[in-house]
Amino acid sequence: MPPPAGELNIAVVGATGMVGQEMLRILAQRGVGAKRVKALASERSSGLEMPYDGARIRIEVLDENAFEGVDLALFMAGSDVALRYAPVAAEAGALVVDNSSAWRMKENVPLVVPEVNPEDIRDNEGIIANPNCCTIPLTVVLKPIQERAGLERVLVSTYQSASGAGKALVEELEEQTRALAAGSTPEVTVYSHQLAYNVVPGGWKPEAEGYNEEEVKIVNESRKILHQPELRITANCVRVPVPIGHGESVFVETREMLSAGEVRELLGSAPGVIVQDDPHAKLYPTPHEVAGRDEVYVGRIRNDLSASHGVVLWVVADNLRKGAALNAWQVAEKAVEMGVI
Amino acid sequence: MPPPAGELNIAVVGATGMVGQEMLRILAQRGVGAKRVKALASERSSGLEMPYDGARIRIEVLDENAFEGVDLALFMAGSDVALRYAPVAAEAGALVVDNSSAWRMKENVPLVVPEVNPEDIRDNEGIIANPNCCTIPLTVVLKPIQERAGLERVLVSTYQSASGAGKALVEELEEQTRALAAGSTPEVTVYSHQLAYNVVPGGWKPEAEGYNEEEVKIVNESRKILHQPELRITANCVRVPVPIGHGESVFVETREMLSAGEVRELLGSAPGVIVQDDPHAKLYPTPHEVAGRDEVYVGRIRNDLSASHGVVLWVVADNLRKGAALNAWQVAEKAVEMGVI
Repeated sequence: MPPPAGELNIAVVGATGMVGQEMLRILAQRGVGAKRVKALASERSSGLEMPYDGARIRIEVLDENAFEGVDLALFMAGSDVALRYAPVAAEAGALVVDNSSAWRMKENVPLVVPEVNPEDIRDNEGIIANPNCCTIPLTVVLKPIQERAGLERVLVSTYQSASGAGKALVEELEEQTRALAAGSTPEVTVYSHQLAYNVVPGGWKPEAEGYNEEEVKIVNESRKILHQPELRITANCVRVPVPIGHGESVFVETREMLSAGEVRELLGSAPGVIVQDDPHAKLYPTPHEVAGRDEVYVGRIRNDLSASHGVVLWVVADNLRKGAALNAWQVAEKAVEMGVI
Repeated sequence: MPPPAGELNIAVVGATGMVGQEMLRILAQRGVGAKRVKALASERSSGLEMPYDGARIRIEVLDENAFEGVDLALFMAGSDVALRYAPVAAEAGALVVDNSSAWRMKENVPLVVPEVNPEDIRDNEGIIANPNCCTIPLTVVLKPIQERAGLERVLVSTYQSASGAGKALVEELEEQTRALAAGSTPEVTVYSHQLAYNVVPGGWKPEAEGYNEEEVKIVNESRKILHQPELRITANCVRVPVPIGHGESVFVETREMLSAGEVRELLGSAPGVIVQDDPHAKLYPTPHEVAGRDEVYVGRIRNDLSASHGVVLWVVADNLRKGAALNAWQVAEKAVEMGVI
């Protein structure tokens, strides 16, 4: 019998970033004692203290020796850090769950959403990747539909919050909001366009054929997680002036007939999903209300009248929690449960 | 030879609303002298003065006798007013262009976007309807694609600004923005949910099968304007915290093959369209920048890799101008040009 996840020695890499801080909050909420948590960041942040469970935790420097005695290394930093240090942590005997995109599409690295493909955890060689913040809620919702009726095609338009781009953009949004409230002109420095009072269909690295990095991630990762490498799926990504919480407008075509009522019922009992769907009572999920919650929220479920077998959905999740830190923690919990750690 | 539209006697009904004020701005910009403009509103606003061309124009009461001597009645009010007074104005000899939804789907009422179906103007019996603020930019963009390759299916997710719901929501958004900037909790009264720092997938009247009024309008009106009554089209409407300017994420499937490059070329020379599409230069249209402009802006044009004949588009227009008042004025200008007035 392995120890519960809360009794492991845990390193949080990138503990000063937004996702790293969210991870510290989650560990504290899960009752992980501060003594078992090592908060790591670059030399620049060394000696800083971050809030932890009502007290504070000291930031230690991430270096080659940081993972001695660590059972679980939760990488909540960027790809550069993950590429360099995830193998170091794995070599030191830790199981790595990495939130960056660095390892997600590598062949021997499972990409896991616990509600969707938990068994893939077994195939790890020391590193498990945590998917993109839009991919996670999307696949949580698509999985029960796929199982019941098969997926023919998925079209996603996103409404992504500023925190998906990191702390600097959230601060810029707040600063621009203060400027607008004061009647002055917002400054634009972090992002290419003003984000307050605006929506921006970009900000991600351009890739081939007019798509950007974010859209390609959603496509490739969904295919890998859902084990449907030929899934027809396209994403159109847009940034909205919201601090936390991503929305997704989703058109799903299924292989077999599946009515909106059946989808509502299916999702109503799906793990990790909360259906909020009563337009007459003005009940539908919004990012402002879903921020801080653990589940994926779904509303506006209806038949797509333009397709023979299609439904329309509105999906919202906290991108820092289920879209990032929480999912990584759930992967770790599942790995413990499966005896992989 | 009819007189140019600027020499007509013009009534603006609902001159105190957001779209009415925009109409006054457009008339002044088009050089229509204040003496030719009658600004009408309900008794409540009687005697008020609105800005007009650097001076002010006095609001007169809308009643049964308000349209004597009026050649063109631009109804920028709600459906109740349009249902009651549009026939009165038409009876008095004015050509009515009505921005409400009251007359749009009536059989003997043309629903017109001048770039799309100008010839329909001829079929009027005194009233011409101006389409919904999302429908107008959408059909402007779809028309050249329809002509070249045929439309198979259209899926739209909207990013609609507060002004689409009227002045009260814009003021609530501004008030909420000030509250957030001051660190206090925003009040929610006009709308069902907080709009600042949030996106809301509703606020429109629920209709059958889980759709709302706005989504039904986009579907039915697009079919009527494009003369394709069986067009497969679905909309998912979402309100965003933007004062002016609607965005639309559009997936279009065509009957014949049409590449993104061909669409870009087609739209680049389409009337009323400006293509802003260079993600490497961070060039794509946003509502903040398109507010105040007359054209429909399109960016992020690319092949939909999930369809054999599909493209993805991002469309933005000023919902008060091209989405409402400006289109109504352009309909009137076209009617004059065609000798219909």
